[in-house]
Amino acid sequence: MSEGRVKPALPGGFNDFPPKLAIERERLLGEVVSVFRKYGFAPLETPIVEFREVLIGEAGETEKEIFDIAGDEEDKTLSLRFDLTVGLARFVAANPELPLPFKRYQVGPVFRGEKPQAGRYRQFVQMDIDTVGARSTLAEAEVLSAMREALGVFSPGEFFFRINHRAILEGLCEAVGLHHEEDQKQLMRVLDKLEKIGLDGVLQELSRKPEHDSDRALGLDDDALRLVEKFLSGADESPLTLAHNLLGNTSRAPAGIEAIEKLLEHFDMWGMPKKLITIDLSVARGLDYYTGTVFETVVVEKPQWGSVMSGGRYDGLIARFSGQEIPSVGGSIGFDRLFRLLYDDSDEKKVSEVEAVVMVFEDRFLPRTIEFVRQLHEAGISAEIPLTSDRSFRGQMNYALKRGAKYLVIYGDGEEEKGVVAIKNLDTRKQQEIALDSNWAARIKEI
Amino acid sequence: MSEGRVKPALPGGFNDFPPKLAIERERLLGEVVSVFRKYGFAPLETPIVEFREVLIGEAGETEKEIFDIAGDEEDKTLSLRFDLTVGLARFVAANPELPLPFKRYQVGPVFRGEKPQAGRYRQFVQMDIDTVGARSTLAEAEVLSAMREALGVFSPGEFFFRINHRAILEGLCEAVGLHHEEDQKQLMRVLDKLEKIGLDGVLQELSRKPEHDSDRALGLDDDALRLVEKFLSGADESPLTLAHNLLGNTSRAPAGIEAIEKLLEHFDMWGMPKKLITIDLSVARGLDYYTGTVFETVVVEKPQWGSVMSGGRYDGLIARFSGQEIPSVGGSIGFDRLFRLLYDDSDEKKVSEVEAVVMVFEDRFLPRTIEFVRQLHEAGISAEIPLTSDRSFRGQMNYALKRGAKYLVIYGDGEEEKGVVAIKNLDTRKQQEIALDSNWAARIKEI
Repeated sequence: MSEGRVKPALPGGFNDFPPKLAIERERLLGEVVSVFRKYGFAPLETPIVEFREVLIGEAGETEKEIFDIAGDEEDKTLSLRFDLTVGLARFVAANPELPLPFKRYQVGPVFRGEKPQAGRYRQFVQMDIDTVGARSTLAEAEVLSAMREALGVFSPGEFFFRINHRAILEGLCEAVGLHHEEDQKQLMRVLDKLEKIGLDGVLQELSRKPEHDSDRALGLDDDALRLVEKFLSGADESPLTLAHNLLGNTSRAPAGIEAIEKLLEHFDMWGMPKKLITIDLSVARGLDYYTGTVFETVVVEKPQWGSVMSGGRYDGLIARFSGQEIPSVGGSIGFDRLFRLLYDDSDEKKVSEVEAVVMVFEDRFLPRTIEFVRQLHEAGISAEIPLTSDRSFRGQMNYALKRGAKYLVIYGDGEEEKGVVAIKNLDTRKQQEIALDSNWAARIKEI
Repeated sequence: MSEGRVKPALPGGFNDFPPKLAIERERLLGEVVSVFRKYGFAPLETPIVEFREVLIGEAGETEKEIFDIAGDEEDKTLSLRFDLTVGLARFVAANPELPLPFKRYQVGPVFRGEKPQAGRYRQFVQMDIDTVGARSTLAEAEVLSAMREALGVFSPGEFFFRINHRAILEGLCEAVGLHHEEDQKQLMRVLDKLEKIGLDGVLQELSRKPEHDSDRALGLDDDALRLVEKFLSGADESPLTLAHNLLGNTSRAPAGIEAIEKLLEHFDMWGMPKKLITIDLSVARGLDYYTGTVFETVVVEKPQWGSVMSGGRYDGLIARFSGQEIPSVGGSIGFDRLFRLLYDDSDEKKVSEVEAVVMVFEDRFLPRTIEFVRQLHEAGISAEIPLTSDRSFRGQMNYALKRGAKYLVIYGDGEEEKGVVAIKNLDTRKQQEIALDSNWAARIKEI
């Protein structure tokens, strides 16, 4: 590297998407947005930068690593958003005149300030839908029906939703004697690791006694551990029966069980196939702001991918700002992760950056060929002349192939004399002359 | 504000766009992108966060205020991009195998870290097209033809392009005896203020003598000032004739004059009306990375808006990274500024978040009405049931009106008995029953 030059590098976890991939990304985003709109969700834009206190709340507790902007403003730190839900909650709280229910979608980049490591994105696109101001599980059913169709756009193969309810987990906390919010949160955190550390790992971590003041270890006794074990390992009963049998006498669990039962009825009405729904009592969604239903999405053949769409009900998040609880539910597709898993740069398929390339053999043809480009544009066909100095047939043909063009428009001495233009279809290799009448441009698609 | 609550505020210069505006923004963005694609530009995505040294170069000089991320990484600062061009140049330098010419568009937010002040956005969307690797002014002509059509999407009224060439300004520097790059940059900076401070202001600033070592004042003598005055005030000659008469004997200006003459020929071929083009010798584009053609766009009835689309040729930017000059040209639409100037929240026009609302009068109708929603979706019509507990006709009608729905789908006891569904067109107030055959959903549009 010579002096004075800057290395054209990207920080770890940030990515370029060249046209080949960006074209595909735009198509997918567009189709998912169409699904969202069909279900009556409308777009909202909120900024990428927010006050840090808005993102993490007064308590200041979060599992997310956050990028902060250098320097304060009005004694507050500015940060990059880590999801699209908190901005929505801030927007709703700031606009109390907003008619409810408010159904919005948002698609945009979010940021995680963790240390760069292989395979982790630090900027990635999320696609969210949320319904704010609806208490009925009809809202959950609508969100998940829309998400089912949206995920279908990616053709990820078979997938299913894992669904639970925070009230059932709160019943579990009650039954094992965890009454403090901090202890309950710790239980959720440990449950969240089930897939990573297994049942034995979870039980071991729950039994560990705190070693110092700030140690959050719960030190559950044997009775409590046996209950957790039964709760998580399931036996032969259906999960809801199990939850009822184990936690039916707690103050919280019955409401959660009832909500899930209602939701299953609504799924039926939406024609959601039963195999798409798994009630899974271990789903907790960590420390997030959820208060009711929680859900994740597993791709059947790729369980190692983790959840590709997650969400739930968060009735308390807006109260962080307004003091007023507004029942809300939403889900989020991790677009970039799905995209990386399902698409890759090495695909040999042809990508069209332009449909037609009009060849230019000599300068004197330039006015005419540019006129052809304009006529193709008017016919709704993307077209260009090669902006290279190579005026050879072979050179321009190669250019057209590199651009993924389907049609080559040829106009030289011979064509000029006959008053025609020659069109070569680069897919079929068929070549044909067409008369230069007022409708010629639209007709190239027939060749 | 009670204890523990966070104010739902945004930092100055950052904005929300509620559905009413976001729907319009998505439509405009989509239409502009269609124009870009028609001209053969393909999408590229680069990240919002880059190394600071990539954004500002080794020299470290920039007029842009930059948001930096707190904390270093590999001893480098991460920053938020302030335009889309530098990321493109970094991408091209990092991918030497990229076939040239490379024509790309990019649409996305950029950031300016200036102190918040009334009316200044600190996050805003730019829409760029650039052609990398083309030396001919055909590239400029293509970019500006595409931009002319893209700006038309906004219906901003009449507008025109102000065009100049850096080589002509370099000729001026030569003629007034400014041979150091720093002095030349200072002249560009002062010229850039012409509209703000007037001709007298410019001449006064150019005549001022430096008062201390770091003072960049140029202290031009009277002969030099007279030349600048003639150059900027024009007299009766055409600007190119004037440039030729004043600077024809400099080493740099003739090449710039010739390039502009060539460009005017190419505009003719593109059918660009003459009144859309103004050669304006005062256009400098400040400190930016331009090396050849530079252009700005003025809306005729709103000159106070400043330039709504700007750009130029920058043959040296990629060399910042690769050491190799690659001739490049591009333009950028300031989407957010145009949007704010042309659209506003107070418009009373109806915004549709959903096309059809299917009323639910009793729980027993729920399965049937959700089936109707699904059938409407299949017919490509956005539809929903109201997620409110209000089951009155009036309440649901108001809901549908607030959502901007066009159709109300009514199914109660009477309709059930007759095997029909009643459709009310909320625009025309016409109401009609249609039989519930397999094609009913598509037919609601006839009402």
